[in-house]
Amino acid sequence: MPDVQIIDVSPRDGLQNEQVIVSSEKKRMLIEMLVKSNIRKIEATSFVHPLKVPQMADAEQVLKLCEELSEIELVALIPNLKGFQRAKQTKISEINWVTAATETFNYKNIGMSIEDNFAQFKQLVQESRTLNITICFSIAVSFGCPYEGKVSPVKVISLVERAIEAGANRIGIADTIGIATPKQVKELLTEVLHIAKSIPIAIHLHDTRGMGLANAYAALEAGVKIFETSASGIGGCPFAPGAAGNLATEDLVYMFERMGVKTGIDFEKLLDAADFAASLTSNRSLGRIRQVEKKRGSFG
Amino acid sequence: MPDVQIIDVSPRDGLQNEQVIVSSEKKRMLIEMLVKSNIRKIEATSFVHPLKVPQMADAEQVLKLCEELSEIELVALIPNLKGFQRAKQTKISEINWVTAATETFNYKNIGMSIEDNFAQFKQLVQESRTLNITICFSIAVSFGCPYEGKVSPVKVISLVERAIEAGANRIGIADTIGIATPKQVKELLTEVLHIAKSIPIAIHLHDTRGMGLANAYAALEAGVKIFETSASGIGGCPFAPGAAGNLATEDLVYMFERMGVKTGIDFEKLLDAADFAASLTSNRSLGRIRQVEKKRGSFG
Repeated sequence: MPDVQIIDVSPRDGLQNEQVIVSSEKKRMLIEMLVKSNIRKIEATSFVHPLKVPQMADAEQVLKLCEELSEIELVALIPNLKGFQRAKQTKISEINWVTAATETFNYKNIGMSIEDNFAQFKQLVQESRTLNITICFSIAVSFGCPYEGKVSPVKVISLVERAIEAGANRIGIADTIGIATPKQVKELLTEVLHIAKSIPIAIHLHDTRGMGLANAYAALEAGVKIFETSASGIGGCPFAPGAAGNLATEDLVYMFERMGVKTGIDFEKLLDAADFAASLTSNRSLGRIRQVEKKRGSFG
Repeated sequence: MPDVQIIDVSPRDGLQNEQVIVSSEKKRMLIEMLVKSNIRKIEATSFVHPLKVPQMADAEQVLKLCEELSEIELVALIPNLKGFQRAKQTKISEINWVTAATETFNYKNIGMSIEDNFAQFKQLVQESRTLNITICFSIAVSFGCPYEGKVSPVKVISLVERAIEAGANRIGIADTIGIATPKQVKELLTEVLHIAKSIPIAIHLHDTRGMGLANAYAALEAGVKIFETSASGIGGCPFAPGAAGNLATEDLVYMFERMGVKTGIDFEKLLDAADFAASLTSNRSLGRIRQVEKKRGSFG
């Protein structure tokens, strides 16, 4: 059994900012390569409005193409009830609802207030349970906001408590713009884990300022066991100015495995998936391990 | 008073791998810009054989040009007794002696065995004291060697004990090839600090695999107060295949200041120095903060 779970979000967060439309077949190939590397949970797509994020317009098609893949849980991001209406027509078994920790980011990202957003979330909980769909509640810009700056941990903690109360099955704490410091991560996640004893907590990391691995280490020290990263570090939020790539999955796997933290992932096959992910985007890949000479050598 | 001390090594470790010779005047300009950013200790040059590292052939000239700079301590790297003979003819007040944790790396780097190297070190201690020169003893490849792979902490600890016994005024633990994990850093530095109660301990970090800031955070958690980094992350050891840049000074300062750890450094002026450092090299700059949009903005 792995010590930690890594959720790769490259097909969703990695691609959503990409201007050139990637075909559904190529997205399916990326997901298949990730599955081959033993990643068992993948954020495959987003049921966002196609005019807002055209790259995600093929959400249903991507999920359909992935139906034959076994031993894998696919997650779809849901920004609002309309997205949920689309998602429940598919065979998705897990959804990731996103609410921001600040009003400005929530308006820019979802187009409504936090309260309206939360009211919508509460409406889908019962139906999700009936449909046997697992619900993750993610909190964007938990450590800092491109519009409002500093984010009070009190706001994040309040959302965590309310989401658990409302019935979330997992909480995701997102450093959407890669602004968190290890100190913030350790303090906030320690508190979140203390509150959310009963349900799993994930951290979603970006590497904008090079602190991605430092934050992953701090989260691990705080007791976090679920990490959301992106193959080759592709990605960035279209509504978060200055957000560079997600933390590269392969960089995290490399660090964890070298620390003796088992990920269950086949590193060679993950590098293949990372190379393919990078080939789909115009973003500069941030994955550092891929750049290291003799990256597939014996040391480590 | 700052909480930590940052020693910038860009004029030495940053430039030594550069094929195009940088003029002594430009090296002096870099040092001056670092001083303006309030960095108070700088590894300025190396008294290595000019045929081995032609970029450092002007060691005496660089130190001479820097004599008028005030409020600054300059350090020179010394690989052997011949280097010390040269150094003591200058006004240098601090030397950094380097011994590797593995025999193979020591041969490749210094051209002799660890024992011969250590015997030379012992010979210069008394004379250094008489000349009022502070002696740092640095241990290269303390976390992993490009030739021998894993490095036993026992070897490093043994060298630390012997160097203290011999009279070193400071110990430097170097991750020469950027292979250390935060777990290794925390474990080894905790032990080193425990042994070396009486004298200061520095950590020298590279960012080859993106773990530089994670390792800095782990070192800070272990109690380390002195960090060796390079403006703009320029650098890499000519005798360590695959070693990319040093950890960027500005990335470390950014993380520490945002964590409330005072560095005493003027960030704006440091970015100017980093831009200049990058302009001197053909190395891809690794500093992440310099790449972030609105890097000099108000947030953080």
